[in-house]
Amino acid sequence: MERFDSPPAAGLAPREHDERARERLLRAAADVFDRKGYAAASVREIVLRAGLTKPVLYYHFGSKEGILVAILEEGARRFERAVERALARGGTVRMRVAALLQEIHALFKENVPAVRVAHALFFGPREALPPFDFGRFERVLTGAIRRLAEEGMQSGELRRLPVEDVAVAINGILEACTDQELAPNAPRLGDDGIVRILDLIFDGLVPIHARKEN
Amino acid sequence: MERFDSPPAAGLAPREHDERARERLLRAAADVFDRKGYAAASVREIVLRAGLTKPVLYYHFGSKEGILVAILEEGARRFERAVERALARGGTVRMRVAALLQEIHALFKENVPAVRVAHALFFGPREALPPFDFGRFERVLTGAIRRLAEEGMQSGELRRLPVEDVAVAINGILEACTDQELAPNAPRLGDDGIVRILDLIFDGLVPIHARKEN
Repeated sequence: MERFDSPPAAGLAPREHDERARERLLRAAADVFDRKGYAAASVREIVLRAGLTKPVLYYHFGSKEGILVAILEEGARRFERAVERALARGGTVRMRVAALLQEIHALFKENVPAVRVAHALFFGPREALPPFDFGRFERVLTGAIRRLAEEGMQSGELRRLPVEDVAVAINGILEACTDQELAPNAPRLGDDGIVRILDLIFDGLVPIHARKEN
Repeated sequence: MERFDSPPAAGLAPREHDERARERLLRAAADVFDRKGYAAASVREIVLRAGLTKPVLYYHFGSKEGILVAILEEGARRFERAVERALARGGTVRMRVAALLQEIHALFKENVPAVRVAHALFFGPREALPPFDFGRFERVLTGAIRRLAEEGMQSGELRRLPVEDVAVAINGILEACTDQELAPNAPRLGDDGIVRILDLIFDGLVPIHARKEN
């Protein structure tokens, strides 16, 4: 709360003022869009919540749709950076997939209103979709998982399996864990939950003697 | 399309007429809510699409919110019946979990507009939520998976693992596969995809020598 409602700090250079105003508006807009829905939200509520004025919003984003697209673009950029950070790590494929899921899960947890808004748009009326490529998240994530899975199969760390299927299974873990954050009353898995569940699918649910394959 | 736009069949008893009108209205409303969004949709568009009149809609559902809640209630009832059918089957836990996911996946595929509407509401503004318990789907599904997982651990078919984690992992597969149906351009996994991916997490991603546990 106080992140958005505190007045802009004094003594900042104009550039920093600009950056902070932009950031405050993005956070406030995500909160208002989440609470009221994009269609029902007004620019007035957003600037009130940010403690700023309409001209500042129009200067940075041009329009209500402009700030919505900026939320999505900013989210996609952070998502892509999180994926790059995880891919750049060393260690086993298991460790790097764990890092990937933890990075993205942490990003989602820090930005629950924006993630909810993106989901609501994605499942909402097609006619109301803003000019934004929603497939971007899926492509970046699936691309990274495929790359890691292929490395793991080449090194022998993973079994030879259809790479697409591995990507769907790992993506599913991320989605199921993310839903726990996005739903108001869902039980929390705890910070290590996502890695515990990843271990579970790496090692399998069945004891060795009950494996169907290999 | 023609399911909704064909005129009511002649020669039906009044009760059957009623049932068919109700069903046509539910389908038409799910389509209109999906295309326009619930807030922007009108009762007029729904009855036009169903080839019926406003009084028929009000007779069955009372209001626009009434038909929305009926879509969700009807969906939840079908969901519960699908889960019960899967639980009543015989066979290994693996076979019964596969049947469970296939039943629900098939139900979702047959009702894509209604499932999209439910997702849009769930992620949409809390203030606009209809009087419906969205946790019902999650509780029924998680309860069934827990029950099957516990049976499997008792019989030795599954490793001893935290039942909650197993439920999240299996739920994740269903979600990842369902998203493939709900997203307009996602690649399709094929009808046996969900079972292939389930096998993958039962048997694990790694070869036996690389397992961390057991």
